[in-house]
Amino acid sequence: MSPSVETTPPPSDRVRLRRKPGRGHHDRATIDAILDAAPLCHVGVVVDGQPYVTPTFHWREGDHLYIHGASKNRTLSVADGTEVCVTVSILDGLVLARSAMHHSANFRSVMILGRAHRIEDPDTKRARLKGFIESLYPGRWDALRPMTDTELKATAVLSLALDEASAKVRDGGPMDDEADLSWPVWSGVIPLRTALGAAVADAHTPAGTPPPALGMAVAPIPGSD
Amino acid sequence: MSPSVETTPPPSDRVRLRRKPGRGHHDRATIDAILDAAPLCHVGVVVDGQPYVTPTFHWREGDHLYIHGASKNRTLSVADGTEVCVTVSILDGLVLARSAMHHSANFRSVMILGRAHRIEDPDTKRARLKGFIESLYPGRWDALRPMTDTELKATAVLSLALDEASAKVRDGGPMDDEADLSWPVWSGVIPLRTALGAAVADAHTPAGTPPPALGMAVAPIPGSD
Repeated sequence: MSPSVETTPPPSDRVRLRRKPGRGHHDRATIDAILDAAPLCHVGVVVDGQPYVTPTFHWREGDHLYIHGASKNRTLSVADGTEVCVTVSILDGLVLARSAMHHSANFRSVMILGRAHRIEDPDTKRARLKGFIESLYPGRWDALRPMTDTELKATAVLSLALDEASAKVRDGGPMDDEADLSWPVWSGVIPLRTALGAAVADAHTPAGTPPPALGMAVAPIPGSD
Repeated sequence: MSPSVETTPPPSDRVRLRRKPGRGHHDRATIDAILDAAPLCHVGVVVDGQPYVTPTFHWREGDHLYIHGASKNRTLSVADGTEVCVTVSILDGLVLARSAMHHSANFRSVMILGRAHRIEDPDTKRARLKGFIESLYPGRWDALRPMTDTELKATAVLSLALDEASAKVRDGGPMDDEADLSWPVWSGVIPLRTALGAAVADAHTPAGTPPPALGMAVAPIPGSD
Protein backbone atom coordinates (compact mmCIF):
# COMPACT_ATOMS: atom_id res chain seq x y z
CA MET A 1 0.00 0.00 0.00
CA SER A 2 1.46 3.38 -0.90
CA PRO A 3 0.86 6.47 1.16
CA SER A 4 -2.67 7.14 -0.01
CA VAL A 5 -5.13 9.96 -0.11
CA GLU A 6 -7.33 9.96 2.97
CA THR A 7 -10.79 8.88 1.89
CA THR A 8 -12.64 8.02 5.09
CA PRO A 9 -12.50 10.98 7.51
CA PRO A 10 -11.30 10.38 11.09
CA PRO A 11 -14.17 9.57 13.48
CA SER A 12 -12.77 12.03 16.04
CA ASP A 13 -10.04 14.59 16.35
CA ARG A 14 -8.32 12.35 18.90
CA VAL A 15 -7.54 9.74 16.26
CA ARG A 16 -6.76 12.17 13.45
CA LEU A 17 -3.22 11.52 12.22
CA ARG A 18 -1.10 14.53 13.09
CA ARG A 19 2.24 13.41 11.68
CA LYS A 20 2.36 12.26 8.04
CA PRO A 21 -1.43 12.23 7.60
CA GLY A 22 -0.93 10.71 4.15
CA ARG A 23 -0.15 7.46 5.92
CA GLY A 24 -3.44 7.51 7.80
CA HIS A 25 -6.50 5.42 7.15
CA HIS A 26 -9.83 5.42 8.91
CA ASP A 27 -11.75 2.92 6.79
CA ARG A 28 -12.76 -0.23 8.59
CA ALA A 29 -11.44 -2.56 5.89
CA THR A 30 -7.89 -1.33 6.46
CA ILE A 31 -8.30 -1.29 10.25
CA ASP A 32 -9.85 -4.77 10.41
CA ALA A 33 -7.19 -6.31 8.18
CA ILE A 34 -4.43 -5.10 10.52
CA LEU A 35 -6.25 -6.18 13.67
CA ASP A 36 -6.80 -9.62 12.16
CA ALA A 37 -3.21 -10.04 10.98
CA ALA A 38 -1.48 -10.15 14.38
CA PRO A 39 -2.52 -11.62 17.73
CA LEU A 40 -0.58 -9.21 19.95
CA CYS A 41 -1.79 -5.80 21.09
CA HIS A 42 -0.62 -3.30 23.70
CA VAL A 43 -3.25 -1.98 26.11
CA GLY A 44 -2.78 1.43 27.72
CA VAL A 45 -4.53 2.32 30.96
CA VAL A 46 -4.02 5.09 33.53
CA VAL A 47 -3.60 4.46 37.27
CA ASP A 48 -3.12 7.53 39.49
CA GLY A 49 -2.04 9.56 36.46
CA GLN A 50 0.62 7.01 35.49
CA PRO A 51 0.23 5.25 32.12
CA TYR A 52 0.76 1.49 31.99
CA VAL A 53 1.20 -0.40 28.72
CA THR A 54 0.58 -4.14 28.85
CA PRO A 55 0.99 -6.67 26.04
CA THR A 56 -1.80 -9.18 25.56
CA PHE A 57 -3.59 -11.09 22.82
CA HIS A 58 -6.65 -9.57 21.14
CA TRP A 59 -9.24 -10.78 18.71
CA ARG A 60 -11.96 -9.09 16.70
CA GLU A 61 -15.54 -10.09 16.07
CA GLY A 62 -17.54 -7.66 13.94
CA ASP A 63 -17.38 -4.15 15.34
CA HIS A 64 -15.58 -4.96 18.58
CA LEU A 65 -12.12 -5.86 19.70
CA TYR A 66 -11.77 -8.23 22.65
CA ILE A 67 -9.08 -8.89 25.22
CA HIS A 68 -9.12 -11.35 28.09
CA GLY A 69 -7.23 -12.43 31.16
CA ALA A 70 -7.57 -13.53 34.74
CA SER A 71 -10.52 -11.89 36.49
CA LYS A 72 -8.08 -10.49 39.04
CA ASN A 73 -5.76 -9.07 36.37
CA ARG A 74 -5.07 -5.45 37.26
CA THR A 75 -5.00 -4.04 33.74
CA LEU A 76 -8.37 -5.59 32.94
CA SER A 77 -9.86 -4.44 36.24
CA VAL A 78 -8.65 -0.90 35.68
CA ALA A 79 -9.71 -0.91 32.04
CA ASP A 80 -13.31 -1.94 32.78
CA GLY A 81 -15.48 1.15 32.30
CA THR A 82 -12.59 3.52 31.64
CA GLU A 83 -11.02 5.07 28.57
CA VAL A 84 -8.24 2.88 27.23
CA CYS A 85 -5.99 2.83 24.19
CA VAL A 86 -5.31 -0.41 22.37
CA THR A 87 -2.55 -0.40 19.76
CA VAL A 88 -1.65 -3.17 17.34
CA SER A 89 1.64 -2.85 15.45
CA ILE A 90 3.20 -5.03 12.79
CA LEU A 91 6.76 -4.29 11.77
CA ASP A 92 7.19 -5.15 8.09
CA GLY A 93 10.65 -3.91 7.27
CA LEU A 94 13.67 -1.76 7.93
CA VAL A 95 14.13 1.16 5.54
CA LEU A 96 17.71 2.29 4.97
CA ALA A 97 18.38 5.67 3.43
CA ARG A 98 21.45 7.71 2.52
CA SER A 99 21.04 10.08 5.44
CA ALA A 100 20.34 9.06 9.04
CA MET A 101 17.21 11.18 9.09
CA HIS A 102 15.48 9.36 6.27
CA HIS A 103 15.92 5.93 7.77
CA SER A 104 12.51 4.56 8.57
CA ALA A 105 10.45 1.44 9.08
CA ASN A 106 7.69 -0.17 7.10
CA PHE A 107 4.80 -1.02 9.38
CA ARG A 108 1.07 -1.38 9.79
CA SER A 109 -0.53 -0.15 13.00
CA VAL A 110 -3.94 0.56 14.46
CA MET A 111 -4.79 2.69 17.49
CA ILE A 112 -8.21 2.33 19.12
CA LEU A 113 -9.53 4.69 21.78
CA GLY A 114 -12.63 4.05 23.82
CA ARG A 115 -14.23 2.78 26.94
CA ALA A 116 -13.71 -0.92 27.57
CA HIS A 117 -16.47 -2.96 29.14
CA ARG A 118 -16.34 -6.29 30.90
CA ILE A 119 -18.73 -8.90 29.50
CA GLU A 120 -20.92 -10.05 32.39
CA ASP A 121 -23.27 -12.54 30.74
CA PRO A 122 -21.68 -16.03 31.02
CA ASP A 123 -23.07 -17.31 27.71
CA THR A 124 -21.82 -14.27 25.84
CA LYS A 125 -18.44 -14.53 27.52
CA ARG A 126 -18.18 -18.20 26.64
CA ALA A 127 -19.10 -17.43 23.03
CA ARG A 128 -16.41 -14.76 22.79
CA LEU A 129 -13.76 -17.06 24.26
CA LYS A 130 -14.74 -19.67 21.72
CA GLY A 131 -14.33 -17.01 19.04
CA PHE A 132 -10.82 -16.28 20.35
CA ILE A 133 -9.69 -19.92 20.28
CA GLU A 134 -11.27 -20.42 16.87
CA SER A 135 -9.60 -17.31 15.44
CA LEU A 136 -6.20 -18.72 16.36
CA TYR A 137 -6.91 -22.43 15.82
CA PRO A 138 -9.98 -23.06 13.65
CA GLY A 139 -11.93 -26.12 14.80
CA ARG A 140 -10.06 -26.48 18.08
CA TRP A 141 -12.75 -25.37 20.58
CA ASP A 142 -14.86 -28.50 20.17
CA ALA A 143 -11.80 -30.74 20.48
CA LEU A 144 -10.82 -29.31 23.87
CA ARG A 145 -11.80 -30.47 27.33
CA PRO A 146 -14.94 -28.30 27.83
CA MET A 147 -14.57 -25.09 29.81
CA THR A 148 -15.96 -25.33 33.33
CA ASP A 149 -18.10 -22.68 35.00
CA THR A 150 -15.28 -22.07 37.47
CA GLU A 151 -12.83 -21.40 34.64
CA LEU A 152 -15.35 -19.10 32.99
CA LYS A 153 -15.76 -17.13 36.21
CA ALA A 154 -12.00 -16.87 36.64
CA THR A 155 -11.67 -15.31 33.18
CA ALA A 156 -12.51 -11.73 32.31
CA VAL A 157 -13.32 -10.66 28.75
CA LEU A 158 -13.40 -6.98 27.85
CA SER A 159 -14.92 -5.52 24.72
CA LEU A 160 -13.94 -2.30 23.00
CA ALA A 161 -15.97 -0.81 20.17
CA LEU A 162 -14.08 0.06 17.01
CA ASP A 163 -15.87 3.42 16.73
CA GLU A 164 -12.79 5.54 17.32
CA ALA A 165 -9.82 4.04 15.55
CA SER A 166 -7.14 4.94 13.07
CA ALA A 167 -4.64 2.97 11.04
CA LYS A 168 -1.20 4.05 9.92
CA VAL A 169 0.71 2.29 7.18
CA ARG A 170 4.13 2.89 5.68
CA ASP A 171 5.60 0.82 2.93
CA GLY A 172 8.00 1.21 0.03
CA GLY A 173 11.61 2.28 -0.18
CA PRO A 174 13.55 5.16 1.31
CA MET A 175 12.52 8.75 0.55
CA ASP A 176 15.93 10.34 0.23
CA ASP A 177 16.60 13.96 -0.52
CA GLU A 178 17.13 14.38 -4.26
CA ALA A 179 20.66 15.70 -3.70
CA ASP A 180 21.62 12.56 -1.80
CA LEU A 181 20.68 9.99 -4.42
CA SER A 182 24.22 9.62 -5.71
CA TRP A 183 25.65 9.06 -2.21
CA PRO A 184 27.41 5.68 -2.52
CA VAL A 185 25.77 3.66 0.24
CA TRP A 186 23.40 0.69 0.09
CA SER A 187 19.84 1.92 0.46
CA GLY A 188 16.62 0.03 0.31
CA VAL A 189 14.41 -2.23 2.39
CA ILE A 190 15.14 -5.27 4.56
CA PRO A 191 11.79 -7.05 4.99
CA LEU A 192 10.84 -8.53 8.35
CA ARG A 193 8.17 -11.13 8.86
CA THR A 194 6.80 -13.43 11.50
CA ALA A 195 7.77 -17.01 10.73
CA LEU A 196 6.41 -20.14 12.33
CA GLY A 197 8.84 -22.69 13.67
CA ALA A 198 8.19 -26.42 13.65
CA ALA A 199 5.42 -27.33 16.11
CA VAL A 200 6.69 -29.21 19.18
CA ALA A 201 4.17 -31.62 20.73
CA ASP A 202 4.39 -32.23 24.46
CA ALA A 203 4.96 -35.68 25.97
CA HIS A 204 1.27 -36.43 26.50
CA THR A 205 0.09 -35.79 22.94
CA PRO A 206 -1.02 -39.09 21.39
CA ALA A 207 1.48 -40.27 18.80
CA GLY A 208 0.52 -39.37 15.25
CA THR A 209 -1.72 -36.46 16.22
CA PRO A 210 -1.08 -33.65 13.75
CA PRO A 211 -0.60 -30.08 15.03
CA PRO A 212 -3.54 -27.76 14.39
CA ALA A 213 -3.93 -25.59 11.35
CA LEU A 214 -3.53 -21.97 12.33
CA GLY A 215 -6.06 -19.22 11.75
CA MET A 216 -5.44 -16.00 9.90
CA ALA A 217 -4.26 -14.14 12.96
CA VAL A 218 -0.98 -15.96 13.12
CA ALA A 219 -0.50 -17.19 9.58
CA PRO A 220 2.85 -16.14 8.15
CA ILE A 221 2.63 -13.49 5.47
CA PRO A 222 2.77 -14.78 1.88
CA GLY A 223 6.25 -15.80 0.89
CA SER A 224 7.48 -16.60 4.37
CA ASP A 225 8.45 -20.07 5.41
CA MET B 1 14.35 -19.83 30.76
CA SER B 2 11.97 -21.53 33.16
CA PRO B 3 9.82 -19.60 35.59
CA SER B 4 12.55 -18.76 38.08
CA VAL B 5 12.88 -17.71 41.65
CA GLU B 6 12.93 -13.95 41.99
CA THR B 7 16.43 -12.96 42.98
CA THR B 8 16.61 -9.21 42.39
CA PRO B 9 13.80 -7.43 44.25
CA PRO B 10 11.54 -5.02 42.33
CA PRO B 11 12.83 -1.42 42.45
CA SER B 12 9.33 -0.15 43.28
CA ASP B 13 5.91 -1.51 44.08
CA ARG B 14 4.68 -0.11 40.77
CA VAL B 15 6.76 -2.58 38.80
CA ARG B 16 6.27 -5.54 41.13
CA LEU B 17 4.74 -8.41 39.17
CA ARG B 18 1.22 -8.99 40.48
CA ARG B 19 0.15 -11.87 38.28
CA LYS B 20 2.41 -14.94 38.13
CA PRO B 21 5.30 -13.31 40.01
CA GLY B 22 7.38 -16.41 39.30
CA ARG B 23 7.70 -15.09 35.74
CA GLY B 24 9.09 -11.77 36.92
CA HIS B 25 12.66 -10.58 36.77
CA HIS B 26 14.16 -7.33 37.95
CA ASP B 27 17.82 -7.94 37.25
CA ARG B 28 19.34 -5.68 34.64
CA ALA B 29 20.94 -8.50 32.66
CA THR B 30 17.52 -9.98 31.87
CA ILE B 31 16.00 -6.57 31.22
CA ASP B 32 18.84 -5.38 28.97
CA ALA B 33 18.83 -8.59 26.92
CA ILE B 34 15.14 -8.14 26.08
CA LEU B 35 15.49 -4.43 25.29
CA ASP B 36 18.42 -5.20 23.00
CA ALA B 37 16.67 -8.08 21.21
CA ALA B 38 13.90 -6.10 19.48
CA PRO B 39 13.82 -2.62 17.95
CA LEU B 40 10.11 -1.91 18.55
CA CYS B 41 8.62 -0.54 21.75
CA HIS B 42 5.24 0.90 22.70
CA VAL B 43 5.22 4.24 24.51
CA GLY B 44 2.32 5.13 26.80
CA VAL B 45 1.53 8.75 27.63
CA VAL B 46 -1.51 10.48 29.13
CA VAL B 47 -3.26 13.46 27.54
CA ASP B 48 -6.27 14.90 29.38
CA GLY B 49 -6.65 11.65 31.30
CA GLN B 50 -6.71 9.57 28.10
CA PRO B 51 -3.91 7.04 27.58
CA TYR B 52 -2.23 6.89 24.17
CA VAL B 53 0.02 4.00 23.12
CA THR B 54 2.36 4.68 20.22
CA PRO B 55 4.76 2.24 18.54
CA THR B 56 8.25 3.47 17.86
CA PHE B 57 11.84 2.24 17.74
CA HIS B 58 13.97 2.32 20.86
CA TRP B 59 17.60 1.71 21.65
CA ARG B 60 19.59 1.33 24.85
CA GLU B 61 22.94 2.76 25.87
CA GLY B 62 24.07 1.85 29.37
CA ASP B 63 21.43 2.73 31.94
CA HIS B 64 19.05 4.57 29.64
CA LEU B 65 16.55 3.75 26.95
CA TYR B 66 16.15 6.22 24.10
CA ILE B 67 13.38 7.02 21.64
CA HIS B 68 13.34 9.62 18.94
CA GLY B 69 11.12 11.29 16.40
CA ALA B 70 10.24 14.57 14.79
CA SER B 71 10.60 17.50 17.17
CA LYS B 72 6.92 18.28 16.58
CA ASN B 73 5.82 14.72 17.32
CA ARG B 74 2.99 14.86 19.82
CA THR B 75 3.87 11.75 21.82
CA LEU B 76 7.45 12.96 22.31
CA SER B 77 6.31 16.46 23.22
CA VAL B 78 3.86 15.13 25.78
CA ALA B 79 6.36 12.60 27.14
CA ASP B 80 9.07 15.19 27.81
CA GLY B 81 9.19 15.74 31.56
CA THR B 82 6.23 13.50 32.36
CA GLU B 83 5.79 9.97 33.64
CA VAL B 84 5.63 7.51 30.76
CA CYS B 85 5.53 3.76 30.34
CA VAL B 86 7.62 2.06 27.69
CA THR B 87 6.93 -1.61 27.01
CA VAL B 88 8.92 -3.96 24.78
CA SER B 89 7.33 -7.32 23.92
CA ILE B 90 8.67 -10.25 21.96
CA LEU B 91 6.26 -13.05 21.12
CA ASP B 92 8.19 -16.33 21.05
CA GLY B 93 5.50 -18.93 20.64
CA LEU B 94 1.93 -20.11 20.86
CA VAL B 95 1.20 -22.55 23.67
CA LEU B 96 -1.64 -24.99 23.04
CA ALA B 97 -3.17 -26.89 25.95
CA ARG B 98 -5.97 -29.40 26.41
CA SER B 99 -8.32 -26.86 27.95
CA ALA B 100 -9.03 -23.39 26.58
CA MET B 101 -7.97 -21.81 29.86
CA HIS B 102 -4.44 -23.17 29.80
CA HIS B 103 -3.66 -21.92 26.33
CA SER B 104 -0.92 -19.36 26.62
CA ALA B 105 1.94 -17.64 24.85
CA ASN B 106 5.68 -17.75 25.27
CA PHE B 107 7.06 -14.24 25.40
CA ARG B 108 9.68 -11.90 26.78
CA SER B 109 8.62 -8.41 27.83
CA VAL B 110 9.93 -5.42 29.72
CA MET B 111 7.96 -2.55 31.21
CA ILE B 112 9.78 0.66 32.17
CA LEU B 113 8.19 3.46 34.18
CA GLY B 114 9.72 6.86 34.64
CA ARG B 115 10.03 10.44 33.61
CA ALA B 116 11.31 10.93 30.06
CA HIS B 117 13.57 13.85 29.28
CA ARG B 118 14.40 15.50 26.00
CA ILE B 119 18.11 15.74 25.25
CA GLU B 120 18.87 19.42 24.64
CA ASP B 121 22.63 19.43 24.03
CA PRO B 122 23.22 19.05 20.27
CA ASP B 123 26.46 17.07 20.61
CA THR B 124 24.87 14.62 23.04
CA LYS B 125 21.84 14.27 20.80
CA ARG B 126 24.01 13.62 17.78
CA ALA B 127 25.99 10.99 19.71
CA ARG B 128 22.79 9.21 20.75
CA LEU B 129 21.44 9.20 17.19
CA LYS B 130 24.73 7.74 16.04
CA GLY B 131 24.31 5.08 18.71
CA PHE B 132 20.85 4.30 17.36
CA ILE B 133 21.99 3.87 13.76
CA GLU B 134 25.01 1.85 14.88
CA SER B 135 22.87 -0.45 17.05
CA LEU B 136 20.78 -1.37 14.03
CA TYR B 137 23.50 -1.21 11.35
CA PRO B 138 27.03 -1.38 12.77
CA GLY B 139 29.45 0.83 10.84
CA ARG B 140 26.77 2.65 8.90
CA TRP B 141 26.88 6.09 10.53
CA ASP B 142 30.19 7.06 8.98
CA ALA B 143 29.08 5.85 5.56
CA LEU B 144 26.02 8.10 5.51
CA ARG B 145 25.67 11.62 4.19
CA PRO B 146 26.49 13.57 7.40
CA MET B 147 23.59 14.85 9.48
CA THR B 148 23.01 18.58 9.12
CA ASP B 149 22.31 20.95 11.98
CA THR B 150 18.84 21.51 10.58
CA GLU B 151 18.13 17.79 10.64
CA LEU B 152 19.46 17.55 14.19
CA LYS B 153 17.16 20.38 15.29
CA ALA B 154 14.19 18.72 13.62
CA THR B 155 14.78 15.53 15.59
CA ALA B 156 13.91 15.02 19.24
CA VAL B 157 15.62 12.36 21.36
CA LEU B 158 14.16 11.40 24.71
CA SER B 159 15.95 9.47 27.42
CA LEU B 160 14.38 7.29 30.08
CA ALA B 161 16.37 5.85 32.98
CA LEU B 162 16.10 2.12 33.54
CA ASP B 163 15.73 2.62 37.30
CA GLU B 164 12.16 1.35 37.50
CA ALA B 165 11.71 -1.62 35.22
CA SER B 166 10.54 -5.20 35.28
CA ALA B 167 10.80 -8.11 32.89
CA LYS B 168 8.35 -10.93 32.43
CA VAL B 169 9.25 -14.16 30.66
CA ARG B 170 7.25 -17.27 29.86
CA ASP B 171 8.59 -20.25 28.03
CA GLY B 172 8.10 -24.01 27.94
CA GLY B 173 5.10 -26.15 27.16
CA PRO B 174 1.48 -26.10 28.32
CA MET B 175 0.70 -26.43 32.04
CA ASP B 176 -2.39 -28.61 31.83
CA ASP B 177 -4.43 -29.82 34.76
CA GLU B 178 -3.21 -33.29 35.70
CA ALA B 179 -6.65 -34.78 35.01
CA ASP B 180 -6.59 -33.45 31.44
CA LEU B 181 -3.32 -35.01 30.33
CA SER B 182 -5.01 -37.94 28.60
CA TRP B 183 -7.39 -35.71 26.64
CA PRO B 184 -6.68 -36.65 23.02
CA VAL B 185 -5.79 -33.35 21.43
CA TRP B 186 -2.49 -32.02 20.10
CA SER B 187 -0.80 -29.91 22.75
CA GLY B 188 2.54 -28.22 22.72
CA VAL B 189 4.28 -25.15 21.39
CA ILE B 190 4.35 -23.51 17.98
CA PRO B 191 7.44 -21.25 17.96
CA LEU B 192 7.26 -17.81 16.38
CA ARG B 193 10.26 -15.81 15.33
CA THR B 194 11.17 -12.71 13.40
CA ALA B 195 12.74 -13.63 10.11
CA LEU B 196 14.59 -11.36 7.72
CA GLY B 197 13.59 -11.32 4.09
CA ALA B 198 16.03 -10.76 1.25
CA ALA B 199 17.27 -7.16 1.24
CA VAL B 200 15.92 -5.10 -1.68
CA ALA B 201 18.21 -2.30 -2.88
CA ASP B 202 16.61 0.77 -4.36
CA ALA B 203 17.30 1.96 -7.92
CA HIS B 204 20.02 4.42 -6.91
CA THR B 205 22.22 1.98 -4.98
CA PRO B 206 25.49 1.48 -6.89
CA ALA B 207 25.59 -1.98 -8.49
CA GLY B 208 27.48 -4.54 -6.44
CA THR B 209 27.06 -2.72 -3.12
CA PRO B 210 26.31 -5.33 -0.45
CA PRO B 211 23.47 -4.72 2.03
CA PRO B 212 24.63 -3.86 5.56
CA ALA B 213 25.22 -6.38 8.30
CA LEU B 214 22.55 -5.98 10.94
CA GLY B 215 23.14 -5.30 14.62
CA MET B 216 21.88 -7.40 17.47
CA ALA B 217 18.62 -5.55 17.77
CA VAL B 218 17.21 -7.00 14.61
CA ALA B 219 19.19 -10.19 14.21
CA PRO B 220 16.95 -13.24 13.85
CA ILE B 221 16.97 -15.60 16.80
CA PRO B 222 19.25 -18.62 16.46
CA GLY B 223 17.86 -21.22 14.09
CA SER B 224 15.78 -18.83 12.01
CA ASP B 225 16.55 -18.18 8.39
